[in-house]
Amino acid sequence: MELSKIGELGLIERVKDQACGERSRAGARGKGQGVLAGIGDDAAVLRLSKGKLLVAAADTLVEKIHFDLSYYSYFDLGWKSLAVNLSDIAAMGADPKWALVSIGLPKRTKVKNIIRFYKGMKALGGKYGVSIVGGDTVSSPNRLYVSITLLGEVLRKRMVLRKGAKEGDLILATGSLGGAFPGRNIKHLRPEPRVREGRIIANGGATSMIDSSDGLSRSLAELCKASGKGGLLFEGLIPRAKKASLKEALHGGEDYELVFTCPKRRAGAIIRKLAGLSKASVIGRITNNRGRLVLSCADGKEKELEIRSFKHF
Amino acid sequence: MELSKIGELGLIERVKDQACGERSRAGARGKGQGVLAGIGDDAAVLRLSKGKLLVAAADTLVEKIHFDLSYYSYFDLGWKSLAVNLSDIAAMGADPKWALVSIGLPKRTKVKNIIRFYKGMKALGGKYGVSIVGGDTVSSPNRLYVSITLLGEVLRKRMVLRKGAKEGDLILATGSLGGAFPGRNIKHLRPEPRVREGRIIANGGATSMIDSSDGLSRSLAELCKASGKGGLLFEGLIPRAKKASLKEALHGGEDYELVFTCPKRRAGAIIRKLAGLSKASVIGRITNNRGRLVLSCADGKEKELEIRSFKHF
Repeated sequence: MELSKIGELGLIERVKDQACGERSRAGARGKGQGVLAGIGDDAAVLRLSKGKLLVAAADTLVEKIHFDLSYYSYFDLGWKSLAVNLSDIAAMGADPKWALVSIGLPKRTKVKNIIRFYKGMKALGGKYGVSIVGGDTVSSPNRLYVSITLLGEVLRKRMVLRKGAKEGDLILATGSLGGAFPGRNIKHLRPEPRVREGRIIANGGATSMIDSSDGLSRSLAELCKASGKGGLLFEGLIPRAKKASLKEALHGGEDYELVFTCPKRRAGAIIRKLAGLSKASVIGRITNNRGRLVLSCADGKEKELEIRSFKHF
Repeated sequence: MELSKIGELGLIERVKDQACGERSRAGARGKGQGVLAGIGDDAAVLRLSKGKLLVAAADTLVEKIHFDLSYYSYFDLGWKSLAVNLSDIAAMGADPKWALVSIGLPKRTKVKNIIRFYKGMKALGGKYGVSIVGGDTVSSPNRLYVSITLLGEVLRKRMVLRKGAKEGDLILATGSLGGAFPGRNIKHLRPEPRVREGRIIANGGATSMIDSSDGLSRSLAELCKASGKGGLLFEGLIPRAKKASLKEALHGGEDYELVFTCPKRRAGAIIRKLAGLSKASVIGRITNNRGRLVLSCADGKEKELEIRSFKHF
């Protein structure tokens, strides 16, 4: 069945049933935790736990720019649309809670595919207790796009920003880098955001954090810029994904790992706590050379680290 | 200058300067009230006042579907994109606070026009203390679109949902209806969301509320459906905009007035308090005929009210 057959209200009814995490978390009321009003009113109404701050991230995926339906299934697209937002919330050390999903749909879109898209979001969101509480469904003339705002909570003292790195802090990264670069593989289509890792890193006393979605070089440059510092990376310490070249590990992007800094004395405990998850490893240290990123190469030479990444415009 | 010349980072720098309400509300810190981290980190971090609930609305405008740049200026588009979201927050009786603005931009878009778009948002957002705290800027292959998530706060006891109307409650509407229907007029291009009115109505003891953006007939049908009630409207009481026909007032849409219900004893005080703003007037009453909307005509006859409105798909 095509979208134009059931119209917007018909679609909203079907989508309501797919809203992730709702049924499983609050039983008969059909709402997620803290959701006083969800889909179906002018706005969602949400209750924050006492003493917590609200964290809000928004990320958009556009057909032919960020994804291509020739190799993304609609399930993959739902998964990834939420994953990129979860990764941003994780990079703050926060708990994801509520999603507002705005989607622009060409008239030709099949209703079963929209349901698959929501199933993809649900499969991932269910892991982390995320409820879809609102959004907007509109017609789009040619291309499909998805714009999600994800809301989360964090204790003020646990919040980790991009700024905050100190001279001498170690730089660490979770997992391995460069593996999503070739595209059309599972790491690219269904990335696992490092939500649990983000909380552990924040609890462990990280001084700054960012996700690696734009590639290690650009992400680290952003972190250093926000902190007013520089960084020294060791080529031999960069955790490369299987078959990934150094260039891919440094600039590939789409990895959704976490890059963070912490005082030397904290690193061991964080690494131990992440042992059963996406393992963290030391890749360098923060310097006082504001805005300068240096790569210490295998041959002992140091060189300026090029900042490269996927360009949106 | 075209967008492709300055790239995403260049755009974000320019957009930061336009983020509405920031400078004016918090001076040197350059952030809005309650904004601990705004544009430039993975997510915004926001502090809620104690004892308040979070309210979140998301609305999207797509070029050639919701607007046409042949008669919308970019300033109008910024204004309207925020207005439609403010109207949803107003319809909950809530205070708007923070906006996340996601925008899909064709490469040909001129940078000065993007700045104008943000100026339009700022002109309206500044009236209500709204800060732009995040969002996403992406490339869009052909058409421009804007997707805004607007966050607000409300005291639990002041929150007004679509559900809650009781039998015998009066139905009221602010302002006049049908005036935005012809399009290409100022009411269509730069609607004034009824934010102050929404708070007064909520404080005055309204039992349910919705905005009239989809037209009076559809908006009232939604309110009655959510409340499990019916409604009786009096043709002679519908406040028609100048030159608007009854049909346009009933089904035209794009008006962004508020439609609400309250017990008879509360109506007078609410109407008096709205006297200096968008005036409210009684247009009907809530009945126990679940799902049935009836129009009492000038000739004394009653007839079923047709539900019609703008169709998205």
